[in-house]
Amino acid sequence: MKEKPAKEKSSRKRPRLRRVDHKLGVPAGSLVHVGEVKTDRPRISLIEFDAAGCDERSFASVAEAREFKPTRQTVWLNVHGLHEPEVMAEIGRRFHLHPLTMEDILNTTQRAKVDEFASYLFIVLRLIDVDRSDGQLNSEQLSLVLGRDFVLSFQEQSRGIFEPIRERMRARQSPTRERGADHLAYALLDVVVDRYFLAVDHLAEEAEALEEEAMSSPSPALLARINRCKRDTLTVRRAVWPLRELLGTLQRSERSSFSPETRLYLRDVQDHAIHVLESLDAVRDQLGDLLDIYLSSVSNRLNVEVRVLTVLSMLFMPATLIAGIWGMNFVDMPLSGSRQGFWWVIAMMGLCAASMGLLFWRRRLLTREE
Amino acid sequence: MKEKPAKEKSSRKRPRLRRVDHKLGVPAGSLVHVGEVKTDRPRISLIEFDAAGCDERSFASVAEAREFKPTRQTVWLNVHGLHEPEVMAEIGRRFHLHPLTMEDILNTTQRAKVDEFASYLFIVLRLIDVDRSDGQLNSEQLSLVLGRDFVLSFQEQSRGIFEPIRERMRARQSPTRERGADHLAYALLDVVVDRYFLAVDHLAEEAEALEEEAMSSPSPALLARINRCKRDTLTVRRAVWPLRELLGTLQRSERSSFSPETRLYLRDVQDHAIHVLESLDAVRDQLGDLLDIYLSSVSNRLNVEVRVLTVLSMLFMPATLIAGIWGMNFVDMPLSGSRQGFWWVIAMMGLCAASMGLLFWRRRLLTREE
Amino acid sequence: MKEKPAKEKSSRKRPRLRRVDHKLGVPAGSLVHVGEVKTDRPRISLIEFDAAGCDERSFASVAEAREFKPTRQTVWLNVHGLHEPEVMAEIGRRFHLHPLTMEDILNTTQRAKVDEFASYLFIVLRLIDVDRSDGQLNSEQLSLVLGRDFVLSFQEQSRGIFEPIRERMRARQSPTRERGADHLAYALLDVVVDRYFLAVDHLAEEAEALEEEAMSSPSPALLARINRCKRDTLTVRRAVWPLRELLGTLQRSERSSFSPETRLYLRDVQDHAIHVLESLDAVRDQLGDLLDIYLSSVSNRLNVEVRVLTVLSMLFMPATLIAGIWGMNFVDMPLSGSRQGFWWVIAMMGLCAASMGLLFWRRRLLTREE
Amino acid sequence: MKEKPAKEKSSRKRPRLRRVDHKLGVPAGSLVHVGEVKTDRPRISLIEFDAAGCDERSFASVAEAREFKPTRQTVWLNVHGLHEPEVMAEIGRRFHLHPLTMEDILNTTQRAKVDEFASYLFIVLRLIDVDRSDGQLNSEQLSLVLGRDFVLSFQEQSRGIFEPIRERMRARQSPTRERGADHLAYALLDVVVDRYFLAVDHLAEEAEALEEEAMSSPSPALLARINRCKRDTLTVRRAVWPLRELLGTLQRSERSSFSPETRLYLRDVQDHAIHVLESLDAVRDQLGDLLDIYLSSVSNRLNVEVRVLTVLSMLFMPATLIAGIWGMNFVDMPLSGSRQGFWWVIAMMGLCAASMGLLFWRRRLLTREE
Amino acid sequence: MKEKPAKEKSSRKRPRLRRVDHKLGVPAGSLVHVGEVKTDRPRISLIEFDAAGCDERSFASVAEAREFKPTRQTVWLNVHGLHEPEVMAEIGRRFHLHPLTMEDILNTTQRAKVDEFASYLFIVLRLIDVDRSDGQLNSEQLSLVLGRDFVLSFQEQSRGIFEPIRERMRARQSPTRERGADHLAYALLDVVVDRYFLAVDHLAEEAEALEEEAMSSPSPALLARINRCKRDTLTVRRAVWPLRELLGTLQRSERSSFSPETRLYLRDVQDHAIHVLESLDAVRDQLGDLLDIYLSSVSNRLNVEVRVLTVLSMLFMPATLIAGIWGMNFVDMPLSGSRQGFWWVIAMMGLCAASMGLLFWRRRLLTREE
Repeated sequence: MKEKPAKEKSSRKRPRLRRVDHKLGVPAGSLVHVGEVKTDRPRISLIEFDAAGCDERSFASVAEAREFKPTRQTVWLNVHGLHEPEVMAEIGRRFHLHPLTMEDILNTTQRAKVDEFASYLFIVLRLIDVDRSDGQLNSEQLSLVLGRDFVLSFQEQSRGIFEPIRERMRARQSPTRERGADHLAYALLDVVVDRYFLAVDHLAEEAEALEEEAMSSPSPALLARINRCKRDTLTVRRAVWPLRELLGTLQRSERSSFSPETRLYLRDVQDHAIHVLESLDAVRDQLGDLLDIYLSSVSNRLNVEVRVLTVLSMLFMPATLIAGIWGMNFVDMPLSGSRQGFWWVIAMMGLCAASMGLLFWRRRLLTREE
Repeated sequence: MKEKPAKEKSSRKRPRLRRVDHKLGVPAGSLVHVGEVKTDRPRISLIEFDAAGCDERSFASVAEAREFKPTRQTVWLNVHGLHEPEVMAEIGRRFHLHPLTMEDILNTTQRAKVDEFASYLFIVLRLIDVDRSDGQLNSEQLSLVLGRDFVLSFQEQSRGIFEPIRERMRARQSPTRERGADHLAYALLDVVVDRYFLAVDHLAEEAEALEEEAMSSPSPALLARINRCKRDTLTVRRAVWPLRELLGTLQRSERSSFSPETRLYLRDVQDHAIHVLESLDAVRDQLGDLLDIYLSSVSNRLNVEVRVLTVLSMLFMPATLIAGIWGMNFVDMPLSGSRQGFWWVIAMMGLCAASMGLLFWRRRLLTREE
Repeated sequence: MKEKPAKEKSSRKRPRLRRVDHKLGVPAGSLVHVGEVKTDRPRISLIEFDAAGCDERSFASVAEAREFKPTRQTVWLNVHGLHEPEVMAEIGRRFHLHPLTMEDILNTTQRAKVDEFASYLFIVLRLIDVDRSDGQLNSEQLSLVLGRDFVLSFQEQSRGIFEPIRERMRARQSPTRERGADHLAYALLDVVVDRYFLAVDHLAEEAEALEEEAMSSPSPALLARINRCKRDTLTVRRAVWPLRELLGTLQRSERSSFSPETRLYLRDVQDHAIHVLESLDAVRDQLGDLLDIYLSSVSNRLNVEVRVLTVLSMLFMPATLIAGIWGMNFVDMPLSGSRQGFWWVIAMMGLCAASMGLLFWRRRLLTREE
Repeated sequence: MKEKPAKEKSSRKRPRLRRVDHKLGVPAGSLVHVGEVKTDRPRISLIEFDAAGCDERSFASVAEAREFKPTRQTVWLNVHGLHEPEVMAEIGRRFHLHPLTMEDILNTTQRAKVDEFASYLFIVLRLIDVDRSDGQLNSEQLSLVLGRDFVLSFQEQSRGIFEPIRERMRARQSPTRERGADHLAYALLDVVVDRYFLAVDHLAEEAEALEEEAMSSPSPALLARINRCKRDTLTVRRAVWPLRELLGTLQRSERSSFSPETRLYLRDVQDHAIHVLESLDAVRDQLGDLLDIYLSSVSNRLNVEVRVLTVLSMLFMPATLIAGIWGMNFVDMPLSGSRQGFWWVIAMMGLCAASMGLLFWRRRLLTREE
Repeated sequence: MKEKPAKEKSSRKRPRLRRVDHKLGVPAGSLVHVGEVKTDRPRISLIEFDAAGCDERSFASVAEAREFKPTRQTVWLNVHGLHEPEVMAEIGRRFHLHPLTMEDILNTTQRAKVDEFASYLFIVLRLIDVDRSDGQLNSEQLSLVLGRDFVLSFQEQSRGIFEPIRERMRARQSPTRERGADHLAYALLDVVVDRYFLAVDHLAEEAEALEEEAMSSPSPALLARINRCKRDTLTVRRAVWPLRELLGTLQRSERSSFSPETRLYLRDVQDHAIHVLESLDAVRDQLGDLLDIYLSSVSNRLNVEVRVLTVLSMLFMPATLIAGIWGMNFVDMPLSGSRQGFWWVIAMMGLCAASMGLLFWRRRLLTREE
């Protein structure tokens, strides 16, 4: 999770529930952006399309957008960056969005959900992305508004994940263009769920790497990484979990936002969401064991070191005993009178230590690795 | 939890189920305040409002309140402190509350719930607050009675959490004032759930701090703190958990306590409650691992100390051996006849110990920290 | 659990499923008392009441009871001790109880449940009581039969828990007396659930004490106590768990055993039962961790002892080295020729040991407590 | 579990899913006995009964049975041993059993279940028995077929568990005989559930014994026994678990296999099944902790031994130091010139060792038991 | 799991969610084979059958198949290998398969599911197979399309698991041939579930072996095997789990794909699937404990080694003390003046060491095995 990139140390680790700071004492429905500001200024891009073709537009200001009159059947408005309330207010007025919808779009710490309003369907999703540079997970909010002839999508920042959809709409033959707004909404949902696969894949690899490291070189830093990985898994799970039910709701909904044909496709997306959840559970199981493995790995390494030290200290024992023996006071001791006696005994000590060392070495008691 | 502040040691840690002490053998429906008395004397404040404006009043005695006749459409009566039965009895009579409702208001160890009566809706909530001075959680009961043209709210003590709502009602344009009693009830619920976010945030920070401490400096005191944090998590969870269902019940209820418009807002509050629950579960997971981390941290620290002691004792070994060697009785030993021989051998001992110490130091076997 | 007080050792620990011993091969419906005989002879007390007042009677024999004709509207018959089949058979005949009901009353190892028969409602409860002398939990069976104008209650032994209800019935104004049989049944249920609060409170205190002891002075006896506490928690849980559903069934039942007014009160009792369950789960969580704490506490105490021994053995090392040094054979050694040399060296040994001891003492390595 | 008594070592421990070996590639519905052959040859006993009385018969061959014409209203056919397909085929033809029923009867590794067919109800149960000689659990299959005027019961071997039922049927007054086939089926189910009580009792005792042993004398053999006990618990649980639902299905079934009166009795059996399950869960909890107790018990015993060894080695230290002291070379040492000096010093050594030993003994550091 | 046999090391261990790599940015419904290519070229075999008989055909190319006109009532088309889109496209056109069906068949990383389309039923299953050479589990996808008069089955590679079904169809009397397409689909499902039994059996044996090894000779390699076995269990579980629901759906479905007669058989398959799941859970329980057993086994082995070393080092102690004693400087020491004194003392040393060694040996403190 990289929601709050640098400022405080503790917030790097755990996404706060920041909603509260801004919100306490503010009446519901006020247009205040709650969440981290992730992009410089909002960018609004618009695609209007019908079966015949599509036109793309991009607006620099609200005033400019106000002038615009659509000429084709369906409109897809995509907004990056949500922190300019006047832009949002204008969109809200234009498409007759409920104040609660506006508030939910701007409060980017929402849980995935679907709300049905009289004239549109409001869908909130969590968009999970793996940052390739540092392997951290990004979780941002994607809000979709699906009306009869328009689709609005609100992202916190531009990531280009919808580019393939635009490509396909520009093609001569495009099922999305032909089938209209609800099929476009499906396509957006499909892209989001596909991203979850990437995140789960990344987490599974991380868990694999952590397990190997936990057994070979346990260190406190590893513990922090295990915990981060656990939290990332939880983040993805919390993003996908409500999706399962949400997609079921969309399929069963009696209101005609989705055509029967598109519902078949939604079922497909739902299958993928369940698949993601099952893979996540496997990762969670693995991470659950990791703590035990790490903790006993640390404990074992210590025990191995103590064993090595004990073995080393034993090498001195025969030599010390031999020194003691020839330190005894007897009238007649072997070698005692000999000129080379001292060196013979020293050699005897060396021999004892060496043979014991060899013995222990063979029994693999001197290696630090277990 | 700070429900019983000072008397016994064990009760500081765990809120008792005090209901029983007072209640055993008392018939249901008797107006006996069960729970800790948290404020000096009950304070009753009243706001009557309609779309046009609002008037505020505060009553010093029951008699004074009895005189009062409302002039505006809707009345909000807020009571702090519940231990004077005659005040409560008067309110009960005035608003035709059922004896069970009265009993539940006075028994401040209730679980969150909603009860529908013929002429009003009775909602019990747990209000969770973080004491900023010592970081302890306060859990008190908030009872709401929602009638057609009145809202009654009963708190155990004044915390000023409803002040922002009053502020908004005093404003020239106020949706709450316009929409009447049910929207006010929603606003109160919203404030309560917002407080949960603060509590969860506090617990998450505490868990983070505990984890760090568990790894760096484990102490029995930490174990007590881990347990307290676990219990606090459970307290918040028990406060929020029934809320999820409660808010669903309020939305689906066929009785017209809430207008369709306000139900949309209730759904919003319910989303927040679910969000709080999910965040709590993440904290719980983390705390669940903490005990294992703490216990093996203690065990490892002991093992590290034993390792350091073993290493230190090994430094004596070569010196002792050398002393033994020159203690042997031979006719001819090197250095034995020399005048500086003794010092040479002492130097040899020092050298051996120093080089062994250096070796162990480099291999990081002498540091107490792992 | 104290169901089988003295005979065998193992049964002190765990309540057997004794039903089987008596029952194997006996046709269902035979009146055989299954369970421990806990009281000398059955005692039958009868209260007949209506809104106007109540009369109490107590019967010494079955014959005497047979004569009795009720004069008031409702009859409450309370029986202590169930091991005289002829008494039970007489009651069964008098109130037209089904053979299965009779069997369930006599088999005092039943699970809490509610059975609806044509003319009455049969409720089985577990009555949990804390023995104040030794802190053990008593679990006995309370069977209630609720007819249109009678309530039968069967206990295994007299504990006086219904005395407050009788007191209230004797009062001039008594809602129970006015509202009749179903309200009396509610009052009995309420008393039983209130007892659970006491039991949970007791268990929570016990768990608290065990945790403290586990950390300070772990002993195998503690392990047995932890296990007993766990089992007691399970016993209470098994008593309360079915109650939750049972009370819901009673509220929803279409048969008119309970009046709508009394159902409100039943909902209240159900809230309390859920409260008890939640408190029990907190105790269970705590006990679950206790085993881990105990086990590593034992392990740590051993490790601390080994550390102390290692430290003590290190105190000898410098002295032994010094003795070895002056045991070397050199022509010229310091102090060697001096008359006080021996004592100087002995002093040197003492000084080394003392300073090392002081060092270790300061680093808290010599205390047996961690 | 003793399903495969002797052949292979590993199969003694765990019942295989043997169905596969025989079945792969065989079309469903073929009459092949799958499972262990537990008895020499099938034995068929028949009781025909009505309210007036009952007649018993036993058949040596299929041919003989084919001749038989029932004279009373209801027939109970009990078969021990299932490995002669022609016998089974004859019974199947006679009572018009579906091929799938026949297959399920012969495949004795079925899970408990109930299947409703047009003219009969097919119930499969697991019959759990404790072998008194070696304390092992036997799990065998009992198949019941309940038609309008017949009950068929198929066991793998004769255990005499239905003997009490036969006894009761021979009595002059027998409710089973009067109420017909469905009451007989209930009686058979009741006997099976009663057996579960015995098995659970046995497991609870075993768990108790294991816990005691785990703390006093942990050995690897114990671990195997813990695991076997766990698996036995699982075996019983798997036998009882589906029964709970099965009995519910039988009560609710709209098909008239069971009369309303008998359904009351079925509810009673279901209560017992739930009781067994709850007792099993208590045993499972206890066994779950046992592994932890065993593992740390083993670890602690090792640590205690190391502590004793450390203590013993410390007894040599003062003596060695004293020897070193008088081994020093000084011109003037106390006792050195004395004739008894040697013995005085030896006595000093003994005294030191003895007093240290006494000290350690008092502090309970020398006992091998913790 | 052997889905990706050789390339990367980490992928040997864990099946990736490979869907994503190929799919990102590709519109749904494109015929791209996603998954590992497991066979050289697709092979298409066809059986057409009715009650009278069956004809088998095998096609080398798409063109050849295009010519074919069926002459019997029902057609079973079985395809091995899915990586030639044109073949698949031709089949899709011929049987009017929906683009989503085609995509799901080609994407061989699907979860088991059933989708109902207007003219056919689409079933996806995971086929689990144990590789006898290395004991690894193979998981591949089996897609079934069940139309009114055709069954299509798509496998990733040929394993011959359907050979017994073909055998039975060639027989003179074949229920499958008589009952048509839905009974054939049942037979295929039955074969798949039977394979699960083999896999579970294999896993149970593996778990048994691992447990034995964990106690006797724990090694890091074992940990990897435990984890692989856990993952295999999860793989089988994920294959079987959705089957339970899937088979229920097929039974309850109102669309007439399965005849009432065949539904009875489906219930039978469902019973087997539940049986597999329960056996899997037993294996999972066992594997869950294995990690604990392994970890403490490793820890204990280390402790035993330290104990042995401690015992060995104690053997030197009396000898060293004796040497010290006779190294003391006294005018009169026993044996000191004797010529054999030296050897007597050496013998004394040997005797002490030998008797101590014997003592420790008897107390079983010198064996490396615990």
